[in-house]
Amino acid sequence: MTSLTLALDIMGGDCGPRITVPATLQALRLHSLLNVILAGDEALIAPLLKNQPQSILNRISVRHTTETVAMSDQPVFALRHRKQSSMRLALEAVRDGEAEACLSAGNTGALMAMSKVLLKTLPGVHRPALVSCLPAVNNTPVYLLDLGANVVCDAQGLFQFAVMGSVLSETVDHTPSPKVALLNVGIEELKGNEQVQAAAQLLQKTPHVNYVGFIEGNDLYSGEVDVIVCDGFVGNITLKTSEGIARLLVQQLKKGLTQGFFVRLLAKFIAPRIRSVLNQMNPDHYNGATLLGLRAIVIKSHGSADEAAYLRSINLAVTEAQRRLPQMIEQRLESILLDTKS
Amino acid sequence: MTSLTLALDIMGGDCGPRITVPATLQALRLHSLLNVILAGDEALIAPLLKNQPQSILNRISVRHTTETVAMSDQPVFALRHRKQSSMRLALEAVRDGEAEACLSAGNTGALMAMSKVLLKTLPGVHRPALVSCLPAVNNTPVYLLDLGANVVCDAQGLFQFAVMGSVLSETVDHTPSPKVALLNVGIEELKGNEQVQAAAQLLQKTPHVNYVGFIEGNDLYSGEVDVIVCDGFVGNITLKTSEGIARLLVQQLKKGLTQGFFVRLLAKFIAPRIRSVLNQMNPDHYNGATLLGLRAIVIKSHGSADEAAYLRSINLAVTEAQRRLPQMIEQRLESILLDTKS
Repeated sequence: MTSLTLALDIMGGDCGPRITVPATLQALRLHSLLNVILAGDEALIAPLLKNQPQSILNRISVRHTTETVAMSDQPVFALRHRKQSSMRLALEAVRDGEAEACLSAGNTGALMAMSKVLLKTLPGVHRPALVSCLPAVNNTPVYLLDLGANVVCDAQGLFQFAVMGSVLSETVDHTPSPKVALLNVGIEELKGNEQVQAAAQLLQKTPHVNYVGFIEGNDLYSGEVDVIVCDGFVGNITLKTSEGIARLLVQQLKKGLTQGFFVRLLAKFIAPRIRSVLNQMNPDHYNGATLLGLRAIVIKSHGSADEAAYLRSINLAVTEAQRRLPQMIEQRLESILLDTKS
Repeated sequence: MTSLTLALDIMGGDCGPRITVPATLQALRLHSLLNVILAGDEALIAPLLKNQPQSILNRISVRHTTETVAMSDQPVFALRHRKQSSMRLALEAVRDGEAEACLSAGNTGALMAMSKVLLKTLPGVHRPALVSCLPAVNNTPVYLLDLGANVVCDAQGLFQFAVMGSVLSETVDHTPSPKVALLNVGIEELKGNEQVQAAAQLLQKTPHVNYVGFIEGNDLYSGEVDVIVCDGFVGNITLKTSEGIARLLVQQLKKGLTQGFFVRLLAKFIAPRIRSVLNQMNPDHYNGATLLGLRAIVIKSHGSADEAAYLRSINLAVTEAQRRLPQMIEQRLESILLDTKS
């Protein structure tokens, strides 16, 4: 990889620096050409950097601030009153060309609002979308967007999400001509609400997206398509429902297999087999949602991410930066816009 | 139980009479005061009734027809052109007072349209909703509505669903003052789209519903509330996603535990434990969605229901008929409407 700098809001998330700093140190050991800017409270960061070799410390610079965005802050409030927050400083580092990508586990609404104002959307993009991989049972990543950045979407918005999701799949996973579907209540042509119907018509007409039609909730995990598009209200609830049910099943299964001595003993022997199945469904293995449609890379980590999950989102930021995702999306959108005009 | 008659569209579903007739015979053995009207092709029904004791046959009457509603029929088309269909004959039996409830595993849209025209909605109900239990990990039933009867809902519609869901939970499960929540992208007051926001305001004001606020997708299975309300687009996708992920996990787990002799051997010993957990999540255990808000009881069974699952939906119809669900909802709605006017 070529040299690369990430700006990290290390104060966000349920545990703040205690999780984000050790994960960052792991990433620095993993990627030898990675540099990081840590935005946050130096007094909390310094003890966590103790005993690190100079070769690692040389690649870290700290942007000190004690201000943070609260999880309860409204986006507009955060924009106006959190000008010295760790989130904002990290985004400003990207805006000022000091870093290629920004990562935060903080308040999603505030991150979205600040990103739009500081980094701007790509030409022609109405609204950025939040996108992430679905927990999957095979190794094919399936992207779902929007995950909640836009609770109301018109057909044009859904169409743009389809284009951006397609480029993401192509760029990050090298999927040739990714299959794109619209999430709907049925696969028949006449099913769904007005927006979904109109978006389907737009997608059928464009040669730039490999649109394959509607997909229903029960086929979300079939691995038949690469990108699934819906509005943020539906996407947020769908992803969270999936996470909820997967977590619950893991929990129940653990409970069921730890009651009774004999069962416990037997369960130990087959635990690796069960664990490998459940791990595939574990949402933590897919940590890191991308704010798609901005001029630079912004990744949102789960607030509850542990060290391993946070590291995954750093790795995602590295991959997207290396593949120059925003530039790839910009190119594609440009040709579509030209097509539409001609 | 007091004597009760169900009208069954025995032609619906993926397998038709081969599933529905044997399940009905089971129900007749189970409920000694149950009578049934079977709407469908006599030539297909007769062989399945062979060797039945006269005491069972006496409680069966057949309404012969060879016409059926196709799964691909549009609701309006079915209404106009399927006047001799098994679905319509079953609904007419309810309309004409010959049966207390109707059950079909056929085309949902057609069933909804025919039910509205033939049976009418309760006074004050704008649109009926489709409601079903979520797969749950404890034994508390949690109802989700609407499941797809209304892909677009305004605040008033969501409010009515909340009232009807609350009465359902109270009447069928004897839950005192059921907790009702609105499905949303966050639990904070300002989250969500316009309809959800406005519905929350209506629900906060009424003394007739124990409204507890918003609920997110990941808490759908926490068992914290009794009724969860959303529009049919979101509800359909949420339920199908849940079913999809639960089925997939069961499948994967089975696969993981049947590879390798030693693992297979061990898995056999703890299989009952795993099975009991997975059964709780199995959507077939919750078969039967109710069309809520009609003047009579109409139950929709999964098209893919097997005999046991179809029997469950018959049992649901029996319970709702015994508890006089439509009358209970009517009473509650009346007092709310009076309240609103005063």
